[in-house]
Amino acid sequence: MSKYITAGLIGYGTVGKGVVKILENNQKIVVRKVGKPIKIKSISDLNPIDKPELYVKNFKDIIKDPEIDLIIELVGGYEPARTIIIESLKSGKNVVTANKAVLAKYWDQIFITAQDYKKSIYYEASVGGVIPVVQGLNEGLAAEEIFEIKGILNGTTNFILSKMTKEGLAYEEALKSAQMAGFAESNPSFDVDGIDTANKLAILASLAWGSWIKVKNIAVKGIADLNIKDVLLTKRMGTIKLIGSAIKTKNGIDLSVCPCLIDKSSAFSTVENEYNAVFIKGKDSGDVLFYGKGAGQGPAASAVVSDIINLSKFIVTNTAGIVTDVIYDRKKKIKILPSGQSKSAYYLRFTVVDKPGVLSKISGILGANKVSIASLSQPNIKQGDYADVIIITHETSLSHLETALRQINALKSIVKSKPVKIKIEK
Amino acid sequence: MSKYITAGLIGYGTVGKGVVKILENNQKIVVRKVGKPIKIKSISDLNPIDKPELYVKNFKDIIKDPEIDLIIELVGGYEPARTIIIESLKSGKNVVTANKAVLAKYWDQIFITAQDYKKSIYYEASVGGVIPVVQGLNEGLAAEEIFEIKGILNGTTNFILSKMTKEGLAYEEALKSAQMAGFAESNPSFDVDGIDTANKLAILASLAWGSWIKVKNIAVKGIADLNIKDVLLTKRMGTIKLIGSAIKTKNGIDLSVCPCLIDKSSAFSTVENEYNAVFIKGKDSGDVLFYGKGAGQGPAASAVVSDIINLSKFIVTNTAGIVTDVIYDRKKKIKILPSGQSKSAYYLRFTVVDKPGVLSKISGILGANKVSIASLSQPNIKQGDYADVIIITHETSLSHLETALRQINALKSIVKSKPVKIKIEK
Repeated sequence: MSKYITAGLIGYGTVGKGVVKILENNQKIVVRKVGKPIKIKSISDLNPIDKPELYVKNFKDIIKDPEIDLIIELVGGYEPARTIIIESLKSGKNVVTANKAVLAKYWDQIFITAQDYKKSIYYEASVGGVIPVVQGLNEGLAAEEIFEIKGILNGTTNFILSKMTKEGLAYEEALKSAQMAGFAESNPSFDVDGIDTANKLAILASLAWGSWIKVKNIAVKGIADLNIKDVLLTKRMGTIKLIGSAIKTKNGIDLSVCPCLIDKSSAFSTVENEYNAVFIKGKDSGDVLFYGKGAGQGPAASAVVSDIINLSKFIVTNTAGIVTDVIYDRKKKIKILPSGQSKSAYYLRFTVVDKPGVLSKISGILGANKVSIASLSQPNIKQGDYADVIIITHETSLSHLETALRQINALKSIVKSKPVKIKIEK
Repeated sequence: MSKYITAGLIGYGTVGKGVVKILENNQKIVVRKVGKPIKIKSISDLNPIDKPELYVKNFKDIIKDPEIDLIIELVGGYEPARTIIIESLKSGKNVVTANKAVLAKYWDQIFITAQDYKKSIYYEASVGGVIPVVQGLNEGLAAEEIFEIKGILNGTTNFILSKMTKEGLAYEEALKSAQMAGFAESNPSFDVDGIDTANKLAILASLAWGSWIKVKNIAVKGIADLNIKDVLLTKRMGTIKLIGSAIKTKNGIDLSVCPCLIDKSSAFSTVENEYNAVFIKGKDSGDVLFYGKGAGQGPAASAVVSDIINLSKFIVTNTAGIVTDVIYDRKKKIKILPSGQSKSAYYLRFTVVDKPGVLSKISGILGANKVSIASLSQPNIKQGDYADVIIITHETSLSHLETALRQINALKSIVKSKPVKIKIEK
């Protein structure tokens, strides 16, 4: 038997470099836990790398290498990531990945291939950065009937929202600040439009309910059009966070990603900067919360190396892939609640002509659509002939509310701009 | 191959009954995850049980039963729990236990036996109730060099402290209230004296640093002599919680269990009632926090059943015990810091004669022992000729502080009672 676990790394960006560094620094820990060292034999990347002796131009040569036990996929995105994972499994390699996009999109294909070829795929780093929530949900709460999963699942958006809340920066400035700090990409759409959060939510929901829950079933709204005015106006009530939420109702699973106003008493309201948090509610467990860094080289790479170590313990004993990592029933049908059916309270802001009768008009339309008002206020910020009206609703169905907002928005003579609507999380 | 995973349950108290109930209610989840049902064939307990058809008087008959794959030990305490676990492993059974006392005391014997007989022992429920922190530390943070572990690890004491803080109840009344709620035993010493917390801390520390860290190395102080006066006097600064703490310093691991004053900004200050929380700091991971119910039938039984499910996945595939659960090097020597060497700030309360010169005497003794004062106040509560003096110190070594307090306590003419000292957690 080989003296090493031999790994091939495909994708040598920030996280890939972190993985190599941690493996080098922590060989003692690795040997103590795995029984032998883990050696990265080859690294593939689009660009030449700082370790030319390990560089392999074509990732296919790494997948074909019979000496390699384990492929670490850190390419990100859909392709060639999907090909790398599928071909690795088919070539008898075990896989570690941090790629939520490819998992959420090809869940079925990836885990069926792993099962068919009796290989393991570990992906703890794909959700929640360093937080061990995949394992926590899949194993720690294995006995549970899961009722709810809610999470701050994207470090980039949480960093931006923290900057807006604490420093009063507008979205564009806060984004720039996140880019400077290395927490946002030059094209930030994947993060700020909520797609990344939706991918992670899809993974957690699929694990929780044992069936592939697709991203297309999730109503997704990002933070790019969030107005700093609303961040500041809601500050007394709580904090705005981008929340991915999956709730089991008697009619189906309700899935959404959107900016939500979080009450000050909630643990989520203290999750700042690049930190993530995941809240899970089970029938017998009650509430469980996980918290830790969701972005950054150290946390992400640490989660990948933990997977490499845990998987290597099975590779060493020739038992990797025997126990299925994801228990997943292709035939199990899960009902998904159509978006707009679940009820919530909302923060609404209308910018309207500042004259008598306008308030009664707005509240009349809300009332006619069964949207009941919990409070109404007019902050003292005039904008020419216009003024803001803030309304907090009682619990209401999203579809009723949206009908009402469409009708109000059609009153061109009194409404200056599209009404703002932010969900309030209990 | 058998149509079932066949388990024997030894110990049929609150948690044992919860385990049977969850297994019955969640057979669908079990079958989906394990591939076949888990059947409890026999139950042993000192007293007759409500399922006479499963009752076996002598637990040894369960351990000897060749049909049984898995022993669930829920007896608690040291004996016969130790015998049950060791004999089960030697008889080729895998074991699930929630017993922190026996694990902390016989760590060496238990895990060496498991290794020798190639059997598995799962014990997630032994620490933090439903929180999957054993696995989180052992696997989720496998790659990490661990710097710090801090936890609210005992639901009973946290329930009592919550009652004292929120309702102003004295310790004895709060204890009674915990007993009524089912969160404290009639003899509460194990919980309130900090022994339970110390056992759990020893388990986490042993996992974190790969060596058996014994309870006797932990300086332990419970909550039984905590005065409601100090709970109320510190309320503006924070909340008093029983904290188990293990910190890696350059001179060794510093281990302690004691009531600590937690700053309001800390996540720990929001952990109420029977909830537990564990904070872990790693080199690359940064801060990770786990939170959930630490006591109660549902949460404890849920954690046990999750272990049963996870272990059964390996039993089904004949791979249980091949990968070692606890990587533990008998020869590895870990330095433990003698208690009193680590530095902290402290809250001190002196009840002294209310006349000039007393304050300068006390502060003089503190100063002479290198204990520097951050603030000093005299709350307006006279007690005859006596008054309270509250001192918050800067960071100081415990041994210096204790010398000073002994000297002050010796001033019988001015000091009414033993000075109160509560560690302040940053």
